[in-house]
Amino acid sequence: MSNWKNLDTLKAFDELKGLKGKVNLKEAMTGESGADRVRKYSVKMAGSLSYNFAAKQIDDDVLAVLAKLADEAELVSKYEDLLNGEIINTGENRKVLHQLTRGQHLNPVMADGVDKRKFYVDQQMRIAQFAAKVHLGEIANEKGERFTTVVQIGIGGSDLGPRAFYLALEGWAKKNGKFLMDAKFISNVDPDDATAVLDSVDLSKTIFILVSKSGTTLETLTNEAFVKNALKGAGLDPSKHMIAVTSETSPLAKSAEYLDAFFMDDFVGGRFSSTSAVGGAVLSLAFGPEAFADFLAGASEEDALALNKDILSNPDMLDALIGLYERNVQGYPATAVLPYSQALSRFAAHLQQVDMESNGKSVNRFGEPVDYVTGPTIFGEPGTNGQHSFYQLLHQGTDIIPLQFIAFKNSQAGNDVDIQGSTSQQKLLANVAAQIVAFACGKDDENANKRFEGGRPSSIIIGDVADPKTLGALLAHFENKIMFQGFLWNLNSFDQEGVQLGKVLAKKVLSKDTDGALDVYSRIMGIY
Amino acid sequence: MSNWKNLDTLKAFDELKGLKGKVNLKEAMTGESGADRVRKYSVKMAGSLSYNFAAKQIDDDVLAVLAKLADEAELVSKYEDLLNGEIINTGENRKVLHQLTRGQHLNPVMADGVDKRKFYVDQQMRIAQFAAKVHLGEIANEKGERFTTVVQIGIGGSDLGPRAFYLALEGWAKKNGKFLMDAKFISNVDPDDATAVLDSVDLSKTIFILVSKSGTTLETLTNEAFVKNALKGAGLDPSKHMIAVTSETSPLAKSAEYLDAFFMDDFVGGRFSSTSAVGGAVLSLAFGPEAFADFLAGASEEDALALNKDILSNPDMLDALIGLYERNVQGYPATAVLPYSQALSRFAAHLQQVDMESNGKSVNRFGEPVDYVTGPTIFGEPGTNGQHSFYQLLHQGTDIIPLQFIAFKNSQAGNDVDIQGSTSQQKLLANVAAQIVAFACGKDDENANKRFEGGRPSSIIIGDVADPKTLGALLAHFENKIMFQGFLWNLNSFDQEGVQLGKVLAKKVLSKDTDGALDVYSRIMGIY
Repeated sequence: MSNWKNLDTLKAFDELKGLKGKVNLKEAMTGESGADRVRKYSVKMAGSLSYNFAAKQIDDDVLAVLAKLADEAELVSKYEDLLNGEIINTGENRKVLHQLTRGQHLNPVMADGVDKRKFYVDQQMRIAQFAAKVHLGEIANEKGERFTTVVQIGIGGSDLGPRAFYLALEGWAKKNGKFLMDAKFISNVDPDDATAVLDSVDLSKTIFILVSKSGTTLETLTNEAFVKNALKGAGLDPSKHMIAVTSETSPLAKSAEYLDAFFMDDFVGGRFSSTSAVGGAVLSLAFGPEAFADFLAGASEEDALALNKDILSNPDMLDALIGLYERNVQGYPATAVLPYSQALSRFAAHLQQVDMESNGKSVNRFGEPVDYVTGPTIFGEPGTNGQHSFYQLLHQGTDIIPLQFIAFKNSQAGNDVDIQGSTSQQKLLANVAAQIVAFACGKDDENANKRFEGGRPSSIIIGDVADPKTLGALLAHFENKIMFQGFLWNLNSFDQEGVQLGKVLAKKVLSKDTDGALDVYSRIMGIY
Repeated sequence: MSNWKNLDTLKAFDELKGLKGKVNLKEAMTGESGADRVRKYSVKMAGSLSYNFAAKQIDDDVLAVLAKLADEAELVSKYEDLLNGEIINTGENRKVLHQLTRGQHLNPVMADGVDKRKFYVDQQMRIAQFAAKVHLGEIANEKGERFTTVVQIGIGGSDLGPRAFYLALEGWAKKNGKFLMDAKFISNVDPDDATAVLDSVDLSKTIFILVSKSGTTLETLTNEAFVKNALKGAGLDPSKHMIAVTSETSPLAKSAEYLDAFFMDDFVGGRFSSTSAVGGAVLSLAFGPEAFADFLAGASEEDALALNKDILSNPDMLDALIGLYERNVQGYPATAVLPYSQALSRFAAHLQQVDMESNGKSVNRFGEPVDYVTGPTIFGEPGTNGQHSFYQLLHQGTDIIPLQFIAFKNSQAGNDVDIQGSTSQQKLLANVAAQIVAFACGKDDENANKRFEGGRPSSIIIGDVADPKTLGALLAHFENKIMFQGFLWNLNSFDQEGVQLGKVLAKKVLSKDTDGALDVYSRIMGIY
């Protein structure tokens, strides 16, 4: 059993606070010292990925204290507890098993008399078989025609991750002959969302995936009704066009209203469910079960690295520790996620959920308020687009915002043009290299308006190409980073009580059980 | 001439600082007091919109000091100077005329011997005529077939606003018989962006809009070459498929390589160019010139409100002042923009640019460093999606982040389903009403993990439906808010020197003129 302690009771944290402002990043990154750092401060991740933290406000002294902190906080031991099936989600009295959804090398975990490793593998295999039958036309529409499109109905964790990775892999799949079905997503309870998606597909050739663990998510059930109406209106039988991804105990599990149902459970939180059936069904249908298996393999390989006690062999833990130093010692309130890859256009939106919903908390895992700041604000857009948008503030604004760059050496499609002596891909990469140095080193100028202070920290994750294995590793890196940060802050990163109050009050509005401000807002908006 | 002074030299700002923590929002918004505030703290905007700030940490005392601050900072007088053509963009020695692009009621402004009001109107009319010819098939492809699709090639301000408003109006247009052409956008220099868009269109029936004020934007010219290659590869003549939106002095202006060219000028910054030819070409082609004219009319009506000296008759200035109070007195570093409207799926990304690129600065308009914080971090996603993502942190995280909600009483398409006694639209609105009250009032609980502190401020803009006029007003509101905040902080909100250094260093990489860290990064990424 590990010892769960608040961050501010750890001796190494006291020591770390003494290192505030230790590194002059501008000096460190200038000249030969900078070149040395870029060569030296790089840690191997799974597959072709590496995590380079040369442009962070870190040196060997800071690293030494971060290593002490990792030991004192027993980070790896807590991760081992989690993998061994301890009740890490204390508030909800649940195990935390998302790593097991991709962890065929991990020890089995028993829960409710079930071998959970086998359970997750079984679901993956059932999905693979189902997808293969759809691709072969063995499962087809009423007229025996092949399904060409899949639409996922879900919200939050049932939407953001699967959507981000569908978008991330679409270009790869088209290039590599793996583009088997088009996928779309309906999430918002705004009826215009479902309307737009339904208008854009051939309903007769579309299969819908209803994703709700509990089978009670209001938005998702409402959108299901929306879709069923549309199917019936088109003379189609909804039960021939829908599958469910849900828990075995949900009302959706054994319903004749679905072609089939695939299962998840309470040990995989929505935001950590991309590698479960929640991501598995849509990604296996769109790109084939092999691509999804590769995605899991990448994640699993990264999960294994996260077991290393040496912080320089554990990129996920190292990233977590550096982030903690920036948040709790340097005092930076936000982090920008900036992938130089159009494929990752919605990756930051997914990370925004994983991070902010996991660690945006003020009480520790024992329900006691903490006296330090926890999860930062996460936002981001792909580069080079962001350069022409909010980078002005990042370079010259009054706040310092640490940056997480991501780049791949190669584009997915391999299409390119040579303009003014370089390809688009070279220009893309030249920009991210330039930005790291510009943020770190700045530039002096007589005109203060053209001056760049520098000293703005960033790290970069570099890979060969955005393929399934690489993206699985990338996902696991951030999931594990967030898990380690939760351990450091002594939070339960796996519940989300903060979403409940809004749900309760919304129900009151819909049943007109309101008074005061809520009543007046409701009337102003014409709800009743 | 107005007096341009730093915020911290204004007496009213000193007085405002004395009002830190003045309002206990939880108390103020509970019971009958809350109902009164919701009724009272609402200001009319253009068209059907209203700005309700009941759930801000504001009372009549704070409002009185904000009114003094508005007077002392001469906010309206500075706006009048701007409209009258003074050189407000001092760093670049330029007038600031984006309001004039929609301001047919405004006084003419002469520049370089040209009546600029007439110039913008002329461009709008030329675009309207061009679009009408395309819609009628008078301008057609090589085979005389009608163009069905328009693709905008641009980045930053040439992309984010036009894209956000195209997405925002697509559902409205389909419902109202105004959906004339499909539009897509290419922005990123990542070759996978252009590849994906080009794969998704019928090139023979596509017209491309190349948008670059200078005619030298690297990403845009690179993507132009990409597109021209694709057109030639398909046996098509690029000059029959492309138009340009640029300045009259750019190399693109009088080129035989384009079907036609429409003009903007240096007095309209990229991020403020949605109402110029930059937004006009694509929106007029997609939805018709009348829809674009309505969009301008809504913006213009809001611009007129911004001339009111009374802060309770000037929603743009009021919003700016409240934001300043939150940033510089209450000390909040970010603002979340949360539209409960799927149509506004990319609106926050556009505002992120307008705000962060305008006011993310550390030196005043005279080039002197300022001693106070300026532009905040802006991020956001549509509700209800965000509720299932990052709202956990907003409710229970350790930082307070002010919220800007937006909602429309009606959906665009009017399609809906009644589930459990309410429509989707009612559920959508019930959620936003519930969130405002949940954030403001919180909820006590014996279990600290289920406790909501409350006291988290928000405002909401409410309108009837997301139609062109309403969206124009919404855009102008935020543009003007940001302008007024720039005046308060004494910044030049209309240049963007912070984007230059990255460009310079990227060029060095591409010409291998590097050393130190930049060289090593370039080698690691395989650029050379």
